[in-house]
Amino acid sequence: MSLTIVCANKNVTKTLYLHRLTTLPYMRTKIAVANGDGIGPEIMEAVLKIFNAANVQLDYEFVEMGKSYFDAGHSTGMTAKAKETIETLGLLFKGPMETPKGKGVKSINVTARKVWNTYANQRDFRTLNGVNTVFSKAGIPINITIIRENIEDTYGGIEHLLTYDVAVGRRIITRPGSEQVIRYAFEMCRRKGLKKLACAHKANIMKLTDGLFLEVFQQVATEYPDIESSDIIVDDLCMKLVSRPETFEAIVLTNLQGDIVSDLCAGLVGGLGFAPSANIGDNISIFEAVHGTAPDIAGKGIANPTALLLSGISMLRFLGYSANAATIENALLYTLEQGVHTGDFGEKGTPSLNTVQFADAIISNLGEQPAQGAVIATEDFEAKHGISPVQNKLRFTKEGVVEEMIGVDVFVEADMQPDELATIAKKHLRYNENFELVMISNRGTQVWPTGSIYTELVNEYRIRFEKKEGSTIRQKEILHISADLSEDVKICSVEFLMNFNGKRGYTLAQGQ
Amino acid sequence: MSLTIVCANKNVTKTLYLHRLTTLPYMRTKIAVANGDGIGPEIMEAVLKIFNAANVQLDYEFVEMGKSYFDAGHSTGMTAKAKETIETLGLLFKGPMETPKGKGVKSINVTARKVWNTYANQRDFRTLNGVNTVFSKAGIPINITIIRENIEDTYGGIEHLLTYDVAVGRRIITRPGSEQVIRYAFEMCRRKGLKKLACAHKANIMKLTDGLFLEVFQQVATEYPDIESSDIIVDDLCMKLVSRPETFEAIVLTNLQGDIVSDLCAGLVGGLGFAPSANIGDNISIFEAVHGTAPDIAGKGIANPTALLLSGISMLRFLGYSANAATIENALLYTLEQGVHTGDFGEKGTPSLNTVQFADAIISNLGEQPAQGAVIATEDFEAKHGISPVQNKLRFTKEGVVEEMIGVDVFVEADMQPDELATIAKKHLRYNENFELVMISNRGTQVWPTGSIYTELVNEYRIRFEKKEGSTIRQKEILHISADLSEDVKICSVEFLMNFNGKRGYTLAQGQ
Repeated sequence: MSLTIVCANKNVTKTLYLHRLTTLPYMRTKIAVANGDGIGPEIMEAVLKIFNAANVQLDYEFVEMGKSYFDAGHSTGMTAKAKETIETLGLLFKGPMETPKGKGVKSINVTARKVWNTYANQRDFRTLNGVNTVFSKAGIPINITIIRENIEDTYGGIEHLLTYDVAVGRRIITRPGSEQVIRYAFEMCRRKGLKKLACAHKANIMKLTDGLFLEVFQQVATEYPDIESSDIIVDDLCMKLVSRPETFEAIVLTNLQGDIVSDLCAGLVGGLGFAPSANIGDNISIFEAVHGTAPDIAGKGIANPTALLLSGISMLRFLGYSANAATIENALLYTLEQGVHTGDFGEKGTPSLNTVQFADAIISNLGEQPAQGAVIATEDFEAKHGISPVQNKLRFTKEGVVEEMIGVDVFVEADMQPDELATIAKKHLRYNENFELVMISNRGTQVWPTGSIYTELVNEYRIRFEKKEGSTIRQKEILHISADLSEDVKICSVEFLMNFNGKRGYTLAQGQ
Repeated sequence: MSLTIVCANKNVTKTLYLHRLTTLPYMRTKIAVANGDGIGPEIMEAVLKIFNAANVQLDYEFVEMGKSYFDAGHSTGMTAKAKETIETLGLLFKGPMETPKGKGVKSINVTARKVWNTYANQRDFRTLNGVNTVFSKAGIPINITIIRENIEDTYGGIEHLLTYDVAVGRRIITRPGSEQVIRYAFEMCRRKGLKKLACAHKANIMKLTDGLFLEVFQQVATEYPDIESSDIIVDDLCMKLVSRPETFEAIVLTNLQGDIVSDLCAGLVGGLGFAPSANIGDNISIFEAVHGTAPDIAGKGIANPTALLLSGISMLRFLGYSANAATIENALLYTLEQGVHTGDFGEKGTPSLNTVQFADAIISNLGEQPAQGAVIATEDFEAKHGISPVQNKLRFTKEGVVEEMIGVDVFVEADMQPDELATIAKKHLRYNENFELVMISNRGTQVWPTGSIYTELVNEYRIRFEKKEGSTIRQKEILHISADLSEDVKICSVEFLMNFNGKRGYTLAQGQ
């Protein structure tokens, strides 16, 4: 990232000055652009053509990313040069990309989001006149912003087969990660002038993980008394989104639930072809089309560039070019309102345009105002100006945490009845009188000391040992008990039980 | 469970014989009924009144379950007598129940499903004339059955705080559990005459867990060539459900995704008040209303009994009373078609009925046929006749599994940079030359030996040790390495790395 290059561009500073009187610390004027695969190059060309016609003062550095770079042996799907460019410029505008299947490589989109810590995924969904949906026909207007946590949850991709039959994925929710995205969501509401932010979750079932997310939401909410905050169970949210979507303004969610709800909302406004996506980080941000690469129509010049254009418009706002953003968005809305469309949507009665014609139609409408939903140039940008880090940033609660070790859950492979396993587990307690066997569960349901004969079992059990009252235990002892136990049963995993500030840091088994 | 009592009821055997020529092994005629909390007693009374008017040959034993039994000190929310009755009779028909909040007790609904192994949750969603929705107004008919896995996933409730800042939930997906519910889904399609079954999942991200579910689906599908099987990513499914719901017939999903999609589908047909729910097990099954207890209107006699009635109709089919089921369902559809409604739905212009009046309206319409969607008595029941188990049933793959231990992931609490942690980890390898340090990750993203300085860190790392090529390792060694490591950093958990049948039983880190 270079302050010099950025500030050196006089045109941009001037442009910005025209519609902003506050001074920006600095502004990047050059951004990295990755065309993407399939229809990517066509729609990117169309969008940049519109940008140029609107006199957007951006310079582009094209970077090498996508399927062909996987195929050429780059395991992350991008060249070292591309990575360096993106990290230097801090902003990537990208077309859709394909990750080859069956090669064991991870999704390039997910890798980019995680490695560069773009912790917030923002997607704005609004009714577009000319794009018919079940809801537009019913006269129900939609204007919802989804903020999705972008790093954690099961997207950590930490999965293990404990036995041939039992797969476990670790769902991670952290306090600093939750705070980052929730704070972003509240700030976004302020910038956009939104009045309500809901936190959707499943904390009634996932009490520690989603419970943590909800707890952080409620804490951060106290700092934003001007925004009406509420929470809602995610399944209830989905029911309401398909019946009364007009009641929601902004929703913040964990990663997977946010993924599902985002696409549901995309469906409400016409599909992925009509929804922008921004991945926001403190140093690097990514604006992208999240629809597929549509290999069946690639190269035919007929793809719909709307989603990428909407992402580009979000990007312009983010960079402070809100006058450009408003002009282009109004031209797009006006064009759609006129019934102009590509082949994938719109009235069958009117002929569809190809990609270039559609872009040209928008260009010819620059300066027009749509009849409905016209936007004005607002101050809703969020240009990040973090100094390039010299080492990885470490986020954690530094003070006021008192920990106590309580015991251990040992997960074992065993094809026996609970009583037999309890006998084996107790045998190894002879070596350490500080511990007692408190519970055995199977798939989370207690099966020892009490349980139901109707609970069916798989060949992976959890054995819970806790310290006896008044005793203290050490990690080494726990690991040695596990090692002893491994003489009789196969250990799959070992999970320590902790209390934090006197509060239990682990859940009870179902039925415990 | 008693064969004698059941067969002794001559009326039922006769009734069944009238519309079935095949002989049933036996049929339970007495079922357990739990009224539930809030509006539960009122709507249960209405439904049983309709059953009696339709001459349904069932006997009811009322059991003590719900909020007041939690309050009276029963930690599972039911009396021992209730549990025994339900296990003996094998069928529970229940109203909505409330689990007290903040007492640390688990949801009675979830406990019941898990302890009694009701592995499949079936919910049938169909357009009901007279119940207006966005989709009914658009003339889009909905007829979708969701089969949700009911035991596993994050509903196992196995969660741990690894550090004060980092919560982890274990998402469990098993081969036998997946097979049970997927097989049920295919069988259900055959019984109901459905032609298409889709498996929705997120196997592109959760490669081992949802990957296992999808793999089992594809295996089981080969046994049902008469059913068209397909799979779909769950977020794509949600987008399509809100735009083209008429393209789906039946969908099978894992637990949380199934929960979300079920409620989305409930929204499509008018909400939880219009959707039945059946929890199917091999020994015990539960039919219930899944809406809330509506404490604000409890006791006023104005609640809508439709969801509980629809669940009751499903139950009648399950028990083989399909002629009764058809008569009652047709009367309900006819009644709704006439614009008859309770206060929570229907045209504002026509006065609403109270609960008893609504039930009486349905009773007066027994024998009527609706103009649209009339049902006929079909053979689509699935009466389970499992012999009461004498011990817990253990399900696992017994043969053909070759395991190899590869290494270990050690999760530690550490507030340092990756390089420092790598130095500590390597120090302890001096004791065991069979191992090497291959990777360190943070929130699933690799940060050592390579990574990006832009990846932000929480105070919990994963350290991956693998055996060197050609060497063999034992569990004890792994646990001892972990014990040694605990001298320098706090261990949170230890997860073994295994290969099964030569295939990697763990995922790579993002960027590895």
